Amino acid sequence: MSDRVIKVGLCGFGVVGQGVFNHLQKRENDLSDQLGAKVEVARIAVRDTSKKRDFDFDSSILTTDPLSIASDPEIDVVCELMGGTGIALDVTLEALKAGKVVVTANKALICDHGEAVFAAAEQGGGQILFEASVAGGIPVIKAIKDGLVINRFSSIYGILNGTCNYILTRMTNEGASYQDILVEAKELGYAEADESLDVDGIDTAHKAVVLAYLAYGRWVPYKDILVQGIAEVTQEDIAFAKENDYAIKLLATMDVAHASGKLYISILPTLVSKKYVLGSVDGVFNAVSIHGDVVGETVYIGPGAGRDATASAVIADVVDAAKLLVAGGSQFVDPAPRGGERIELAEPEEIKSRYYVRLQVADKPGVMAEVTSLLAKNEVSLASVTQKEVEENAASATLIMTTHMTTEQAILDAVRALEESSSVEGKPFTMPISSFES
Amino acid sequence: MSDRVIKVGLCGFGVVGQGVFNHLQKRENDLSDQLGAKVEVARIAVRDTSKKRDFDFDSSILTTDPLSIASDPEIDVVCELMGGTGIALDVTLEALKAGKVVVTANKALICDHGEAVFAAAEQGGGQILFEASVAGGIPVIKAIKDGLVINRFSSIYGILNGTCNYILTRMTNEGASYQDILVEAKELGYAEADESLDVDGIDTAHKAVVLAYLAYGRWVPYKDILVQGIAEVTQEDIAFAKENDYAIKLLATMDVAHASGKLYISILPTLVSKKYVLGSVDGVFNAVSIHGDVVGETVYIGPGAGRDATASAVIADVVDAAKLLVAGGSQFVDPAPRGGERIELAEPEEIKSRYYVRLQVADKPGVMAEVTSLLAKNEVSLASVTQKEVEENAASATLIMTTHMTTEQAILDAVRALEESSSVEGKPFTMPISSFES
Repeated sequence: MSDRVIKVGLCGFGVVGQGVFNHLQKRENDLSDQLGAKVEVARIAVRDTSKKRDFDFDSSILTTDPLSIASDPEIDVVCELMGGTGIALDVTLEALKAGKVVVTANKALICDHGEAVFAAAEQGGGQILFEASVAGGIPVIKAIKDGLVINRFSSIYGILNGTCNYILTRMTNEGASYQDILVEAKELGYAEADESLDVDGIDTAHKAVVLAYLAYGRWVPYKDILVQGIAEVTQEDIAFAKENDYAIKLLATMDVAHASGKLYISILPTLVSKKYVLGSVDGVFNAVSIHGDVVGETVYIGPGAGRDATASAVIADVVDAAKLLVAGGSQFVDPAPRGGERIELAEPEEIKSRYYVRLQVADKPGVMAEVTSLLAKNEVSLASVTQKEVEENAASATLIMTTHMTTEQAILDAVRALEESSSVEGKPFTMPISSFES
Repeated sequence: MSDRVIKVGLCGFGVVGQGVFNHLQKRENDLSDQLGAKVEVARIAVRDTSKKRDFDFDSSILTTDPLSIASDPEIDVVCELMGGTGIALDVTLEALKAGKVVVTANKALICDHGEAVFAAAEQGGGQILFEASVAGGIPVIKAIKDGLVINRFSSIYGILNGTCNYILTRMTNEGASYQDILVEAKELGYAEADESLDVDGIDTAHKAVVLAYLAYGRWVPYKDILVQGIAEVTQEDIAFAKENDYAIKLLATMDVAHASGKLYISILPTLVSKKYVLGSVDGVFNAVSIHGDVVGETVYIGPGAGRDATASAVIADVVDAAKLLVAGGSQFVDPAPRGGERIELAEPEEIKSRYYVRLQVADKPGVMAEVTSLLAKNEVSLASVTQKEVEENAASATLIMTTHMTTEQAILDAVRALEESSSVEGKPFTMPISSFES
């Protein structure tokens, strides 16, 4: 064994940071044996040096200045585990410009500043690794950039947010409302105090942007993605799904149209067949299905969050970096295919699917005729309509419809027209019905 | 871009070799852009230089001597795609001793000669990469050695043979016999003319040995593994599975006992709950479930064979090697943890499971008493017994039983005792009933 030491600086020492520290310590000898070099946590940036931590370590390696780690010539690998896009971005850019490897779990940072981050890496000869930013402990980023390197990807489908999948699964199993499950999920630590990043689909969209860059080489602006969360899913939707052998999943869809080559990305509650593997991935688990032109479909399932699962992914990147450093040097390699900036995004009129539509309508004569005629005007043709028996004296009824193949634009237009109708109460709820086969 | 060229020699130019050549050619520019180096197929060893091939290429790069490629100082990466353990082994050892990277899809070679191959790689400073040897296009080897590098593995379960899974799936869906489906599978190209390597579990065992080395660092001799194929599975077994919400899978099991640290490996038809993800992986698909102590369970599903899926995996290794060569040099890194030679194998009396037992018995008084007493004597206690209504004049009846938790040794002993009984016809068929949860 050589006496080469790969020096790691941890910026951020919260749940994930301490997980990384702990597991690197525990397996230090194993790693040394395999790599022919020691991987050592040489410095740690914290907010409060006096705070008690879960693990023992030499407190002299602590600093309150993460930027001093980013610019420390002794440090080879900087783990950015602070989160946010403020100081985390400064640290990342500084370290990359200094030619270091930056390992991050920060999908918001990569999503919002990916272009600047990659430019800094290229300019400084650094490297940015971010396995932990998508799908937690599942090595899906390495799968796309290494394992499937020779493939082009016609589509990627992901269940990328464990909180949403947990809530939807419990709603399905227990018949309880979204609100009730959310409250319990918060108590149990499966949802954050401010749940909006998760349940509104924002976190999933961040991750989809990261995957899309890796697969297609294009930074898709967040604002160009149709994003809808799970807060509007009701037991009526769950019941429909169960009766028809579907599960409702918050699905990230990335799809390249065969004919036009245009890329479509959306984050939407989606009816997924229970016969298809993603339809049976429940609870906090994440899953990603990747369609490669050479390999065909491969699917990856595992824990999408949690201290140890995330630490497992962060450390995988640290070790990857260490291997390259031991081999002779790490240098910038863009993991994405070239030419992505030329990929156009598909317009809603180019996106085809079957849809599920749920409406609250006034219980009075002529409503059904009005609703169906509004849909027909927008070129949405119905495959099925169900109105449950209305209780005596109820002022409104729930209509559940499925459509034949139509376009996303047609559904958006139809929903707008329905919203404006005096017969329809509130906003209609729609979901695509996926055409996955088992 | 530098003008660095990574020179690849293909030894073997059959289905997979031509797939590798084709896809490397098609994506040559993409790869150059990403790697900053050109990946070039510089030489190809074939048996017959005059044979017509599916792709155009400069015939001057052909040779009939694969060893000349292994020793060619111009060649950086040798792809051993000939198969077998004769000349393929010579080529592999020669290239590794010369410090080259060898990429192979040859599980039999790694299984039977892994120790010698790794020793040659270490001695010569070469590298042996074998992503394509297990689970075809699914990058599961990279997952274990890179993505999950910080983990120790309590267990790995795999559906590793597409032919077996295809036959079992069709038996389940169509109610046809093993023999009928096998004949059709051969006609359709899903089974080889000589099917024994696949259906007898030998191919699966080869792959399990490779995975076990990666995960545990121990080369388990093939003869120490309990291997049973799928040829004895009947429609009675399939019917039992269906009725009880199981699927029958040829399952590779690698399991480390928590208390003793001993390793258990078996290849057995197994009743797997349909609620568990591996119970729903059908057709030619492979799947691997990996339990890591840091990450938890991750599952990988995809095509286990085929020209392009295998080529995708071979090329992933070639590109991995190219990245290291570009970074400064590829050198031997043993992907397995140290200390594996100290891991003991578990004995059959240490293995616990519930079992399914199917017997053909004489239809005469006292048989049930004899069978159950033989089982009891061997400490196998029954959870259920079914004897289907026997047809008038039938001389024998089928008994289907499930046991409570017992040991593998007890089942082996009980089966032996039953075989010797004059009331039992032929050999009893047994399968473990997996305790996987959904």
